[in-house]
Amino acid sequence: MSTASLSIVQPKSAHLSLPKGTLAFEELKDKILGEFAAKVPLELRLPQALIDDPPKDVSNVPQESGILSAKDLEITDQYDAVALAEAIASKKLTAVEVATAFAKRAIIAHQLTCCLVDWFMDEAIERARSLDRHLEETGMTVGPLHGVPISIKEHMPLAGHYSATGYWDTRVLDTEDCQMMAILRDAGAVFYCKTLQPQSIMHLETVSLLGRTLNPFNIQLTAGGSTGGEAALIAMRGSVLGVGTDIGGSVRCPAGVCGIYGFKPTSYTLPMSGFLPEGFGAELNVLCSTGPMCTSLRDMDLFMRVLTDAKPYLSDPRLIPIPWTGLSGAKKLPLKIGFMMNDGVIKPQPPVTKALLWAKGQLEKTGSFEVKDFKPFKVAEAMKNIRLAYWPDGGQAVKAHLASTGEPMLPLTKWIIKDAEGEDIGTTGVLRQRIIRDLFRAEFSSHWTEQDVDVVISPAFVGPACSHETAFYWNYTAFWNYVDCPGVCLPTPFKAGKKGTEDYSTDEQTPLSEECKHVRQLWAEGDFEGAPIDIQVCARKYHDNDLFAALEVMKDALQF
Amino acid sequence: MSTASLSIVQPKSAHLSLPKGTLAFEELKDKILGEFAAKVPLELRLPQALIDDPPKDVSNVPQESGILSAKDLEITDQYDAVALAEAIASKKLTAVEVATAFAKRAIIAHQLTCCLVDWFMDEAIERARSLDRHLEETGMTVGPLHGVPISIKEHMPLAGHYSATGYWDTRVLDTEDCQMMAILRDAGAVFYCKTLQPQSIMHLETVSLLGRTLNPFNIQLTAGGSTGGEAALIAMRGSVLGVGTDIGGSVRCPAGVCGIYGFKPTSYTLPMSGFLPEGFGAELNVLCSTGPMCTSLRDMDLFMRVLTDAKPYLSDPRLIPIPWTGLSGAKKLPLKIGFMMNDGVIKPQPPVTKALLWAKGQLEKTGSFEVKDFKPFKVAEAMKNIRLAYWPDGGQAVKAHLASTGEPMLPLTKWIIKDAEGEDIGTTGVLRQRIIRDLFRAEFSSHWTEQDVDVVISPAFVGPACSHETAFYWNYTAFWNYVDCPGVCLPTPFKAGKKGTEDYSTDEQTPLSEECKHVRQLWAEGDFEGAPIDIQVCARKYHDNDLFAALEVMKDALQF
Repeated sequence: MSTASLSIVQPKSAHLSLPKGTLAFEELKDKILGEFAAKVPLELRLPQALIDDPPKDVSNVPQESGILSAKDLEITDQYDAVALAEAIASKKLTAVEVATAFAKRAIIAHQLTCCLVDWFMDEAIERARSLDRHLEETGMTVGPLHGVPISIKEHMPLAGHYSATGYWDTRVLDTEDCQMMAILRDAGAVFYCKTLQPQSIMHLETVSLLGRTLNPFNIQLTAGGSTGGEAALIAMRGSVLGVGTDIGGSVRCPAGVCGIYGFKPTSYTLPMSGFLPEGFGAELNVLCSTGPMCTSLRDMDLFMRVLTDAKPYLSDPRLIPIPWTGLSGAKKLPLKIGFMMNDGVIKPQPPVTKALLWAKGQLEKTGSFEVKDFKPFKVAEAMKNIRLAYWPDGGQAVKAHLASTGEPMLPLTKWIIKDAEGEDIGTTGVLRQRIIRDLFRAEFSSHWTEQDVDVVISPAFVGPACSHETAFYWNYTAFWNYVDCPGVCLPTPFKAGKKGTEDYSTDEQTPLSEECKHVRQLWAEGDFEGAPIDIQVCARKYHDNDLFAALEVMKDALQF
Repeated sequence: MSTASLSIVQPKSAHLSLPKGTLAFEELKDKILGEFAAKVPLELRLPQALIDDPPKDVSNVPQESGILSAKDLEITDQYDAVALAEAIASKKLTAVEVATAFAKRAIIAHQLTCCLVDWFMDEAIERARSLDRHLEETGMTVGPLHGVPISIKEHMPLAGHYSATGYWDTRVLDTEDCQMMAILRDAGAVFYCKTLQPQSIMHLETVSLLGRTLNPFNIQLTAGGSTGGEAALIAMRGSVLGVGTDIGGSVRCPAGVCGIYGFKPTSYTLPMSGFLPEGFGAELNVLCSTGPMCTSLRDMDLFMRVLTDAKPYLSDPRLIPIPWTGLSGAKKLPLKIGFMMNDGVIKPQPPVTKALLWAKGQLEKTGSFEVKDFKPFKVAEAMKNIRLAYWPDGGQAVKAHLASTGEPMLPLTKWIIKDAEGEDIGTTGVLRQRIIRDLFRAEFSSHWTEQDVDVVISPAFVGPACSHETAFYWNYTAFWNYVDCPGVCLPTPFKAGKKGTEDYSTDEQTPLSEECKHVRQLWAEGDFEGAPIDIQVCARKYHDNDLFAALEVMKDALQF
């Protein structure tokens, strides 16, 4: 085994192999992968036999690999970000111990799930050492994240590392941190890796020409997308706190299907300056949002607090200066909770319905909540509109990006642009989309008011994690982007059972639509065993604080 | 004198006469003007001799006309909206008395300045009567604006009245109040007129094919635009509280040149739903804003409070739910005030500089403020960008609107579209403008941080009110739209003197640009006597509450 290449687990089926690009493209790819591999020492590599014949569930491999010390395992298994910060501040752990443990576990996770695009253990340890020294010398931490390792998505600029915005021609070596990373670094964060994103950053699976991210609990399934590298890494506990972006579900879907926590705030809540330096036509009508992915409710709150306390709106005036009160904000009592069991277009696959029914029962039995049904609102129309709004230029920029380096178009890229493919719709077309969007949002707001709820609980995805190349239906997340509402995905105690042990109930037999029928077919064909199930909780636009106050009130009943 | 037509003062110079449209167009115009005229009883009409030979300053005509009773004059001269609400609630005045007085004074103002497009005294009195009855029967007001007359701009939908968005083909009879008017009506407002706006609603003068609004203090000058009808009406005290819209200065310029108060909040602060039902291409990159125009600082605060207390964001989720604290909000002490004496492109005409120097001196002599200079930031670039951003379709929609009814294009419409005239720039072009805008705003924000000020005081316009057809330079207001900062124009004790009595100081002799040279030439050619001078105070985007807290702190020194 040489260090010139790194073996990682990838699906064996021919239909899941990645297409080849031009010769120049393949040379660049080999160079990128070679540079990555060269950084991974032999002692952190898994046996080739394991890579060649991995278990379906790889989530326990790190514990069993023998690569991680007992201390490494304790650090990575038993802490969230809040606990890590406390342990480092109180000198129970050093930042170097923590950085080492997570960097090691991350590279193991990568070999099993293909979750990383960059990994820099040495830099992380050096940074951690300087933080330890600072604490030793001054008795003070540098900030609330002193020594906390944070993983970030590929397109977020970090000084000294490459970023790309979904196409190889956009790959660039950044010389400066973007605004968010500068704030996190100032607060004491230790960066140690960047996570894989799909081509175009517009799939609900994570597959780029560099590889395909696998679901740790069942590698025949996706880890979701577009922040799937992040989700798989966190589910493998190679990170406890990461950062994603979401314009159709890219934080919530992967968080949901990997059984972790993920939050998409209302747009312009958190700093995204530099994330998409060339812009994205979709943002003329649907704004992207960024948020935390992690392993606990309180870590989402910590992340939000650190970033908003830094007053990022003073540098980026797009950001709205609503102070973060989060989990400690004023509670509405009794909390009114609406359940949207399905969206009127696609009934979720059986384990999702089971988890929702459990959540409903848990909340009802406390007697402290007003639990009611929430009627879906014109989801088919929203999906039609948003799919067009994503590509006002008819997909021309996508094609130009790919053509410029000979990068082949992946099937899920083709899937997401197909409704809009064609001519640029012009400013009149964009303006029309905007008017339709604003009317839709106003109508949905009235619909919400009529139903008189504080939050809405709904599926995080049409099912548990799906088989590769089948993440077609964005309904359960993209709807909330179309109306720009904040949404959190949170784990339930449920996982999908062995194939054949769960099915749609008798009264769910009639499909609601062609899409619903297709989702049923995918359920019949797939093997979802082991896939964790999240639920999603959403609030009104700009009511991110109310959402977190509600989560605080519900957390015992729902075991968050 | 018959009631079939209504004589109003208009400029006599041939170059200011309005062009004729097609025959059909002229017939429609005669019909509209005829319908208006038919509502104005003979006893509220000014003598034809006065209309034919008006004084240069018509602001005192209402007092001298003999049409208004002593009570009418007391009500219209001595109250602001806060005082009116108090007087009606305490039964010192009836709503009918108030509505009658303002409706009468408004129609006098219209005959002298051409400030109205609709007037409905009977409806207002009927509404006022029902409010008086409600108070009599219940002992309660219906809301904080019980009986307060409010004038509104033509394009704002009000049930039972016509609205138009700057072109005759958009004129429509509204069957429902728009969101803002519904809130104001619920709060007790009495509507009695709609005010004139210019063609395209995109001039800083108010001239439509229905007529030209004149400045009450010197009818050779403009009342500003696009909310110039409103500003002239309020300066004539035919209203004490009106509503305008501002995407380049359309609240602040007319408020400024008519010597009243006007506030343009940050975008999406106040409800505008229905104001531009077909949308406006400019809004893809520069958002319009709406705000109060009035005669006192506290009335702006009242208006903001009434509208935000109604939680308009529950119906229109574009609106940002930042609670209004306004004048009673937390004060920053010592307040840091930056003075931008000129914008680096155009030195303001002499009376404006005089007023700014006075304001600076007033603030300095209290010793309670940190008063400093504020360096202008790339204003020429901002002006270039915003002029292009207004018309991403190359002005095609404007031309289509005009063509569809045979409405002739007015010179100031031609002026504002000319830089952008041509092809639609496509979604790629709009996206590029957006990126440039966001970078500009971020840079400006850093520029603001470096200068360490809480608010910036600058001119409201390049000079006092200008001669008709010369409102070319939007710099002092449109810059703040380009960066989307909230801005208030407030009166100073100054008015422009007799021609020849004021001039640029010795160190202002060198023009900063071609535009600056032109503004100097306009100064030399014009007669500005009597034009009031406002100053403008701006804060950072979304810091509308901080702006008002600062105004409260400065109000004694600046005699607001």
